[in-house]
Amino acid sequence: MLARDEMKRYYVIGTMRDLKRKDKLVEAAGDAYGKTLSLLTLDVCSDESVKQCVDSIKDRHIDILINNAGVGLVGPVEALSLDEMKQVFKTNFYGVVRMIKEVMPDMKSRRSGHIIVISSVLGLHGVAFNDVYSASKFATEGLCEGLAIQLMNFNVNVSMIEPGPVNTEFEMKLMIEVSKKEFVGADPETLDHFRTCYLPTQVNLFQGLGQTPEDIARVTKKVIESPQPPFRNLTNPLYTPIVALKYADETGSLSVHTFYHMLYNLGGVMHVTVRIMKFLSFGWLRRRAISPT
Amino acid sequence: MLARDEMKRYYVIGTMRDLKRKDKLVEAAGDAYGKTLSLLTLDVCSDESVKQCVDSIKDRHIDILINNAGVGLVGPVEALSLDEMKQVFKTNFYGVVRMIKEVMPDMKSRRSGHIIVISSVLGLHGVAFNDVYSASKFATEGLCEGLAIQLMNFNVNVSMIEPGPVNTEFEMKLMIEVSKKEFVGADPETLDHFRTCYLPTQVNLFQGLGQTPEDIARVTKKVIESPQPPFRNLTNPLYTPIVALKYADETGSLSVHTFYHMLYNLGGVMHVTVRIMKFLSFGWLRRRAISPT
Repeated sequence: MLARDEMKRYYVIGTMRDLKRKDKLVEAAGDAYGKTLSLLTLDVCSDESVKQCVDSIKDRHIDILINNAGVGLVGPVEALSLDEMKQVFKTNFYGVVRMIKEVMPDMKSRRSGHIIVISSVLGLHGVAFNDVYSASKFATEGLCEGLAIQLMNFNVNVSMIEPGPVNTEFEMKLMIEVSKKEFVGADPETLDHFRTCYLPTQVNLFQGLGQTPEDIARVTKKVIESPQPPFRNLTNPLYTPIVALKYADETGSLSVHTFYHMLYNLGGVMHVTVRIMKFLSFGWLRRRAISPT
Repeated sequence: MLARDEMKRYYVIGTMRDLKRKDKLVEAAGDAYGKTLSLLTLDVCSDESVKQCVDSIKDRHIDILINNAGVGLVGPVEALSLDEMKQVFKTNFYGVVRMIKEVMPDMKSRRSGHIIVISSVLGLHGVAFNDVYSASKFATEGLCEGLAIQLMNFNVNVSMIEPGPVNTEFEMKLMIEVSKKEFVGADPETLDHFRTCYLPTQVNLFQGLGQTPEDIARVTKKVIESPQPPFRNLTNPLYTPIVALKYADETGSLSVHTFYHMLYNLGGVMHVTVRIMKFLSFGWLRRRAISPT
């Protein structure tokens, strides 16, 4: 969360569930900590925590709300329980809803504010074996499209940031957990597809196209500082053609077939494909995304 | 749910939560009832009911699953509780997930089947004051995009049917309920927008563009009988340009601005606009949607 003073200087309020884990962040922040950066406890899954956190900010004044909390879930749908799915929505969707419900009314009455949601390219197109995470990000996109329209009346902007793969602890932890998981309920063929097609493709994509958290932060800063912040913001130019596929064919078949071939037939040449795409992107594609560089 | 015999004749298994309410349906079905149509109790919100229903079908053999259960929720987000939102997801999203989890593994092992979801144009673009319903339909679209890719390996098709306004008891009940609701927590200006812009626009859209449930059934039949069923299927040609707006501008700003003007500035001329659109649509637009006629 950010507030600005009269000089348009930012005051950043970083949040985490457990402040005991702040040491690395405090070290990275250096001099800023205690001056332009403060830290508060926040669990976006708790009504009480959200209220307490926002109430503890001076005048509850937040100029820019950045929703970044997120969890993942991959695997064959038939082997995932509804409870596991609900955990994903609890953070990725209801966490965003809870924060927006708490902060938006003040922004409306001040006729000023910017709500930013760190969504995902998976909020724009679905991917096999990442169906539930994708669903949670789609849900957030749908909610925010509606809010963006309504909030134009109140001079409050809404922007989605849509990263592709980002190399973080979150992703690596998920991959390791998943490679060990049994997925009871999935048939052997589906499990084989998941393990021999999906997982290696993911590793390839992360290695070939992965951005850093700093890249995403730079894109977010660009969006914040834009005089007319776009609603939708891909961070990775390499995903522009992938999203364009969906938009080029309203029946969705082009997208579905392309992803099918990428996953099941092109696995072997994926690292080459990724390199070619990366090479090509150092040109015109960059102009179609908010590139961090 | 539908099963087919060797002659490719359909056997329809209609479901409802409470079979005591079947009289109107039985009357409409005429001779078919008891021959090619049977009825079963099903509550898509209950694990037990879903299992019991599918288990009671001969060999659990379902060739075509049609997910049609849905509930609505409109109003300013700040005045809707998370519990109300969860009720929407319970049916619109988890109901679909539950049915797919129960039916899909059998389809995969038979290497044949078709999963159909009655989604909505609101699963493709968000609308102010219908944010949560939209989010639930977006979620379903995201989930199914992923499933469609994976299921190509098993010769199982997935198709979304995306109706615009449909004149049913469901819609009319919702409108009446909503016009009486207080929406505690919303500021007077937002409530005024909701009551004087959103609600009249909706009434106009339903009167001007509304399709009948029979229209949607006809489109669904076309999709079922298509040799290569498309993934995405708009039922109303008038929504083609609206969805195209989103696809024409990847920043989303074109969509957001157009909806803003439609809702807040064009309300007064909406009934004329709707008539012009309807007139125009009797031509080329029809080819871009699975029109019921």
